[in-house]
Amino acid sequence: MADDHLRDDTLELLGLLAFFELSEMGEVLGEPDPAQPVAGRLAQARRAGRALERSERVLAEIDRLGGSGLDEMARFDGVFDDFDVRTVASTAAESVLRDYVGRTVAEDFCRVVAAGAEPAARDVVIEVAGVGRVDEALVQAVADAAAADPVLSARLALWGRRLVGEALRLVQGLLVERASFARLAAAARAADAPDAEPAVAADPAPEAALAAADPTAVWILRRITERHAERMRRLGLAA
Amino acid sequence: MADDHLRDDTLELLGLLAFFELSEMGEVLGEPDPAQPVAGRLAQARRAGRALERSERVLAEIDRLGGSGLDEMARFDGVFDDFDVRTVASTAAESVLRDYVGRTVAEDFCRVVAAGAEPAARDVVIEVAGVGRVDEALVQAVADAAAADPVLSARLALWGRRLVGEALRLVQGLLVERASFARLAAAARAADAPDAEPAVAADPAPEAALAAADPTAVWILRRITERHAERMRRLGLAA
Repeated sequence: MADDHLRDDTLELLGLLAFFELSEMGEVLGEPDPAQPVAGRLAQARRAGRALERSERVLAEIDRLGGSGLDEMARFDGVFDDFDVRTVASTAAESVLRDYVGRTVAEDFCRVVAAGAEPAARDVVIEVAGVGRVDEALVQAVADAAAADPVLSARLALWGRRLVGEALRLVQGLLVERASFARLAAAARAADAPDAEPAVAADPAPEAALAAADPTAVWILRRITERHAERMRRLGLAA
Repeated sequence: MADDHLRDDTLELLGLLAFFELSEMGEVLGEPDPAQPVAGRLAQARRAGRALERSERVLAEIDRLGGSGLDEMARFDGVFDDFDVRTVASTAAESVLRDYVGRTVAEDFCRVVAAGAEPAARDVVIEVAGVGRVDEALVQAVADAAAADPVLSARLALWGRRLVGEALRLVQGLLVERASFARLAAAARAADAPDAEPAVAADPAPEAALAAADPTAVWILRRITERHAERMRRLGLAA
């Protein structure tokens, strides 16, 4: 990968993550209040504040690389709208899943692709996108409720599959539409297993169809699907 | 004033300010986006983040005094609802005024009353409530627009009077319903002019009726009205 691509591609990745964290603020404050009024509002406000801090951390990194944070974010204006419209949660448990196994996919994507980015920026992305954004107590409460109620468990498993399906569609779009991400992903894959052969023909997983046999896309989608499956296991739900 | 009152009254004042700043977050993020999408959203997010920081600063002070931030804030749950419902802005300029000459009154009240509070907490209140929350460029843009358009200017002057009327009603309610604030206000007035006679009879200003001839309430409302008039002057509007 040429060095000029590396900087620009890295800036684009940082722009995606900064925009994602900024959009989290609205997401968090737009959610219904799950707890006692003031306590719940303060907890939400603090989650929103942490999302802003993560966005600022990434914007500072864009500055460091000589980019414009606003320009890099503006490229992604609206990129989550389709996902958001298609995954409106109708219960508190669905809302937790939407966060925990849905929007998190955007962060997983950033982390996986970051392996191909400029090294210092890569570390920032991995740090920022790796923060557990979802309240562990809420996740545990959903896991407990699902464990006690097979009907709820089946319903949430279905919801989880729908969320990851929509999220993978989003990721697929980012890879297809942005040469920067395709380059970063290819570099990330090469760094991960330099001698590996694409395993598409040998193991036609469902995501192979989505990825139109692009081995890098298959590799990314598989990495993301693995993380998704792990989260669903933590919830005690069938992935 | 007895010392046990001083601590409890101070905690109540801190609770009001912490709750006000927390409510600002939702206010700021709920406003229509005035600028270019991403730039405007980032600016709003940063304003919301600063409101949270101010709330945290006050909550830390409540901690220092051995109080519970959540309990102190919870006393004020809903206290701004009536004001908010009665002052829905219908234009961007009205929205700026709502912030600049409307909600600001709650901070003015905290600053004035703080003179009667525990000294270290008083300094925190004066610092936190004294931060200019409103974007000066937005204020200037409204002033410029009003200067160029006498009809707009008259309309905004009317809106400003409505805002301050509603805000004074809120303040009046706080003084009447909460003995803590009445005590702090009396102490603040005594500190301000220890030998002053109530001037109600000599100068029956409009707020005298509101305040039902309580000289402390008259003093507070006059202080707040003065600040309001100063802001209206900066906007070039008739107070």
